[in-house]
Amino acid sequence: MRILGIDPGLQTTGFGVIHADGPRLSYVASGTIRTSGVPTGDLPGRLKILYDGIREVQQRYEAQCAAVEIVFVNVNPQSTLLLGQARGAALTALVSCDLPVSEYTALQMKKAIVGHGHAKKDQVQAMVQRLLNLPGLPGKDAADALGIAIMHAHARVSFEAMGKHTALQRRQHAQFKGGRTY
Amino acid sequence: MRILGIDPGLQTTGFGVIHADGPRLSYVASGTIRTSGVPTGDLPGRLKILYDGIREVQQRYEAQCAAVEIVFVNVNPQSTLLLGQARGAALTALVSCDLPVSEYTALQMKKAIVGHGHAKKDQVQAMVQRLLNLPGLPGKDAADALGIAIMHAHARVSFEAMGKHTALQRRQHAQFKGGRTY
Repeated sequence: MRILGIDPGLQTTGFGVIHADGPRLSYVASGTIRTSGVPTGDLPGRLKILYDGIREVQQRYEAQCAAVEIVFVNVNPQSTLLLGQARGAALTALVSCDLPVSEYTALQMKKAIVGHGHAKKDQVQAMVQRLLNLPGLPGKDAADALGIAIMHAHARVSFEAMGKHTALQRRQHAQFKGGRTY
Repeated sequence: MRILGIDPGLQTTGFGVIHADGPRLSYVASGTIRTSGVPTGDLPGRLKILYDGIREVQQRYEAQCAAVEIVFVNVNPQSTLLLGQARGAALTALVSCDLPVSEYTALQMKKAIVGHGHAKKDQVQAMVQRLLNLPGLPGKDAADALGIAIMHAHARVSFEAMGKHTALQRRQHAQFKGGRTY
């Protein structure tokens, strides 16, 4: 199964596509979508870059499901609102492609990938490189997105080991494990 | 010119379509898109309802431009994040239809419609009814959306009176008047 992981942000959104064959994982693609070509004040224009970019990635790599990082409330409420709008655009792009979407916190992803929730960015990059057998370190946003995709692959495997296989149940499981806070 | 006004919200999003012929305004359609049919925890599913709903409205009424209410930071940061994601989905739906999008605060809309920024919902409803010559009071969310569309029509007229006509300039003007805070 191909999984598209997304680490949403207004300036830079990371994406990572992996193939999961049971516990075996392989790298397909990763990168970042940047909105820096559009003036900062043009929020609709920036969201369109995100939306078009994610749909283009999905059209090219044809994932069967998606996993998106749950973003957290920022100290600055305006930043929270902006990040929320970027994440809303990313989720909308995925559901517009009819992809089932699961959601995980950065804490869950770091626990699954590095072993503890307070891992730093470069530790995530190094573990993602090792888990996917990459020739070099992935970029930070791409590594987070690949990490979210790997997290979803783990959640699926552990859930299937429980003998429950429907997409809805997998989804509910992912959400249960997520302790979503959006 | 047909204008689609949107008052975004995660539970209920109001929409209102008006036709503006210079200063003359006429009502085309209005209503609400509700996400109550989807479980509260299924954020991607709720955003899909919003996205599909707004695109359906646009396909039916073929507006030439859109105006969206700028939402404010809530006391509860989680609510701010959720509202941001709903607004992100609404903006994404509009730009996915290639509509130029202007943004106005509720304060600006109330000033333009009622005459002062602290007008209550029922005052907005009554003035929207009068300005569009409606047989009855519009619903609260629909009235806000129609109010935003009327606000945009006013901004366009006052801007065109200044002798500047390009879409980009109109947009910049709307943004300038908006004092955007997202």
